[in-house]
Amino acid sequence: MAVCFQFQSPLKPITFPSIRNQKKVEPVFTSVKSFAPATVANLGPGFDFLGAAVDGLGDYVSLSIDSSVSPGHVMISEISGSSKLSPNPLFNCAGIAAIATMKMLNIRSYGLSLKLEKGLPLGSGLGSSAASAAAAAVAVNELFGAKLGVDQLVLAGLESEAKVSGYHADNIAPAVMGGFVLIKSYDPLELKPLIFPQNRDLFFILVSPEFEAPTKKMRAALPAEVGMPHHVWNCSQAGALVASVLEGDVVALGKALSSDKIVEPKRAPLIPGMEAVKKAAIKAGGFGCTISGAGPTAVAVIDSEEKGKEIGQKMVEAFLEEGHLRSVAMVKRLDRVGARLIDSVPI
Amino acid sequence: MAVCFQFQSPLKPITFPSIRNQKKVEPVFTSVKSFAPATVANLGPGFDFLGAAVDGLGDYVSLSIDSSVSPGHVMISEISGSSKLSPNPLFNCAGIAAIATMKMLNIRSYGLSLKLEKGLPLGSGLGSSAASAAAAAVAVNELFGAKLGVDQLVLAGLESEAKVSGYHADNIAPAVMGGFVLIKSYDPLELKPLIFPQNRDLFFILVSPEFEAPTKKMRAALPAEVGMPHHVWNCSQAGALVASVLEGDVVALGKALSSDKIVEPKRAPLIPGMEAVKKAAIKAGGFGCTISGAGPTAVAVIDSEEKGKEIGQKMVEAFLEEGHLRSVAMVKRLDRVGARLIDSVPI
Repeated sequence: MAVCFQFQSPLKPITFPSIRNQKKVEPVFTSVKSFAPATVANLGPGFDFLGAAVDGLGDYVSLSIDSSVSPGHVMISEISGSSKLSPNPLFNCAGIAAIATMKMLNIRSYGLSLKLEKGLPLGSGLGSSAASAAAAAVAVNELFGAKLGVDQLVLAGLESEAKVSGYHADNIAPAVMGGFVLIKSYDPLELKPLIFPQNRDLFFILVSPEFEAPTKKMRAALPAEVGMPHHVWNCSQAGALVASVLEGDVVALGKALSSDKIVEPKRAPLIPGMEAVKKAAIKAGGFGCTISGAGPTAVAVIDSEEKGKEIGQKMVEAFLEEGHLRSVAMVKRLDRVGARLIDSVPI
Repeated sequence: MAVCFQFQSPLKPITFPSIRNQKKVEPVFTSVKSFAPATVANLGPGFDFLGAAVDGLGDYVSLSIDSSVSPGHVMISEISGSSKLSPNPLFNCAGIAAIATMKMLNIRSYGLSLKLEKGLPLGSGLGSSAASAAAAAVAVNELFGAKLGVDQLVLAGLESEAKVSGYHADNIAPAVMGGFVLIKSYDPLELKPLIFPQNRDLFFILVSPEFEAPTKKMRAALPAEVGMPHHVWNCSQAGALVASVLEGDVVALGKALSSDKIVEPKRAPLIPGMEAVKKAAIKAGGFGCTISGAGPTAVAVIDSEEKGKEIGQKMVEAFLEEGHLRSVAMVKRLDRVGARLIDSVPI
């Protein structure tokens, strides 16, 4: 949702469910490698409380016990895939989340070195910061025997999100947990996974233009107040969106995704060509389309990869014709797993 | 939601999906009797778009072919259970819905006489007008061979609702269809039944005080605008409410029901004792509580009839102690059927 080196105070303090006073936590691996997926959030009427993970696109974190690093600290040894990120762990999404996870586990006797491979572009609206944070939180947790549950990993990631893009869990929760996740509340944190049926296919068509979404303008475009009729409308569409996910009804999901009358109408005009891209997606057979995160990526949904590619092509053409922007289309399945260990070296 | 003799212009014209130009519709019975259930609408964050039907509580309509009634017309021959309703079919919920249904079926050669038995009190927040309208629409439809589908019956009932309590379908749709119904849109009318799992029990605890809810004040209490944080909160709770219904999670349903930050906080203070009743319901083990419709009935939810009775007793006590209102408690199952034929006399 935002670039990783931005800094912003969290809106509310984070409660750490630390496991202090419990048995000392020891590493079970000398090194691990983790992956966390991209996410689409602000799903139309799901603004600020619903997000979904995207398969085959995301960030990698490699983490090792490193005796040259001060105990209880993290050193970022390498960042690939982006030249814009700070190697200072206090200013880096992966670093912040790794430190938060270490605190939760009360790790004071080991230093860690972290390597971040960005598979996601920054500021594209695909949950880049959340993917780095989720991968780092999971890597630390797995390195020390997976003592923390997903809620705690989300809280660790949330500390990173709060610093870089505001206190919102709609990217970090699906990045950690996979699938669709509804954020029911923050205090206490209550996450509701919405299981999309296993026997149904859902593809996201993600079209990212070469355009830096004006983050400040995107935020300023949000109305402070919402008229009652629009409020009721968006609430009803949020309900329909949740039903469509649980029932695996991709047509209804698309329709709900397209139905936002509050945020998208204010933000879409700030992304050149977005309105035309949405029309093109639907005309080409997409079941629905909206802005992914705070943009500039457009996200449409469909039930077949082949159709998705055709639709993506039309969306790319619309970005070029109407927005004068070059763009790249990808067709990706729903990720049902979330952040995960992909490699490990035993002690 | 409102008393039946009020009059109000519909907010938008109603489209009649008439079956004109089709084969002439003939009666298949000389008389029928129908039932339609009470409904709870404005379910916390489900305000104005979500309602549910209540088993074993509702209105009855008896309808006969009557050669003494002008063809194409309806005469209301008897109203029992209420002395406040107009026998003029143009000013009576059942009459309006019956006429609307006759128009849809293009019935011009038969006159009908209608008897209405009110099982529901007026203006209690239990969808009294919708129950009468649903029973009448279903009676006419069944008398003539059930040519219309539920969407059309809801539209016929909606004409009645528009005249007596505003253009809202969150009572009439569940009164016709049973279960929970989400109103996705009005133009065109799109109704989404939310199936509560068959193997789960859901009980509504309905506590109706002797108090006439100040309808005008109740409407005026609705804010014209909603702050963005409250909008996002209520949308997320609406999503959680829908998920809880589809998953049959009565605890989560109660929690979502209780979570409204927009309408209930404004309306509850207008019903003496309501806030205390809600607290009493939850303290006694109810999973959640809110105002039913526009009140004054309080509705709580639970998964056992026995526990429901205990909770209802505590709610009655709270209405008396804090609101100085006498009240009656009922514990009723979710109705899964909706308006139905219960008797018929063949031709």
